[in-house]
Amino acid sequence: MVRWEPGAQERLAAAALELYASRGFEQTTAADVAQSVGLTERTFFRYFADKREVLFAGQDHFQQLFVANVAAAPPEASAMEAVSFALDAAAVFFPDERRPHSRLRQSIIDANPGLHERELLKLARLTEGMAAALRDRGVPEPQATLAAHTGVTVFGVAFRLWVGEHEERPLGAIEADVLRDLQALSPSVR
Amino acid sequence: MVRWEPGAQERLAAAALELYASRGFEQTTAADVAQSVGLTERTFFRYFADKREVLFAGQDHFQQLFVANVAAAPPEASAMEAVSFALDAAAVFFPDERRPHSRLRQSIIDANPGLHERELLKLARLTEGMAAALRDRGVPEPQATLAAHTGVTVFGVAFRLWVGEHEERPLGAIEADVLRDLQALSPSVR
Repeated sequence: MVRWEPGAQERLAAAALELYASRGFEQTTAADVAQSVGLTERTFFRYFADKREVLFAGQDHFQQLFVANVAAAPPEASAMEAVSFALDAAAVFFPDERRPHSRLRQSIIDANPGLHERELLKLARLTEGMAAALRDRGVPEPQATLAAHTGVTVFGVAFRLWVGEHEERPLGAIEADVLRDLQALSPSVR
Repeated sequence: MVRWEPGAQERLAAAALELYASRGFEQTTAADVAQSVGLTERTFFRYFADKREVLFAGQDHFQQLFVANVAAAPPEASAMEAVSFALDAAAVFFPDERRPHSRLRQSIIDANPGLHERELLKLARLTEGMAAALRDRGVPEPQATLAAHTGVTVFGVAFRLWVGEHEERPLGAIEADVLRDLQALSPSVR
């Protein structure tokens, strides 16, 4: 019998984060996570493909939103303006209240090479998704891929700073600073 | 008895490329590759960790060179000048004579999602390696990571164009054009 467990997914995700951080990712099983919130392993696998996916389910959701915002930018927006539109949405998605959670999650990922690899791949897929969304807006190649890389780089670098230990600036302010830093590098045309 | 097989690594790599392209990567075993050049499977595994690695051994070598050139740039060079130095080296590493080989290799990788994933990861690692080389030059963060991303993006996009079906420009000329395209996107400071 499949029972509906109100809030099960959220409870499992919160419990996983706590156990991965305290015991270590490798040392924690899906059954441990489920039992810690009074659910069964079977229920766990109804919501998550494996114990890694608990950490990335939110990221998948965010990445869809990030790409959707490229598509939702005003029709007259340039490639980089559409990317900025998505960066603004990212800053709204990660308000300061979310920072402790994001910090904890990042510390778990950084402690495990397999999880770090998965994160790198997700960011590479995000770049491909953004480039496709930009092409759908009529941006030609290679500009679409270049703008997508720029957007994901700015987001990725800003996010790493945002979860840094003593960082207090909101994500949107960091994104703006990183964009400025990127512009100041001014790749010299040869 | 371990015998020295003159040119065995190169013969294996060439045979692998040919078989992966004609039969398909999944349908070819390491033993098939070895046998096609009169060697044993054991000899194959003396040179390559697995049948995927045959495709990436050259890439590892190139990436070391790419990063080494960041370190070898003149001390007074800026972050982006050091990156340009590495891009110039890349253009020398991939002369036009090498293009048919690179095209064949890319077609094998593009036909197999697992290989594509491995390539994405190698590029992500290359970015981390370049950022580290830039920090060693005294470039602070986040500028080191931003310049590394810019360099790997320009190389990656230029390389994909270079192996494109009707492309005839040399890699160095494409890199210069891509750098110009990137600059023309001019991320607007918010």
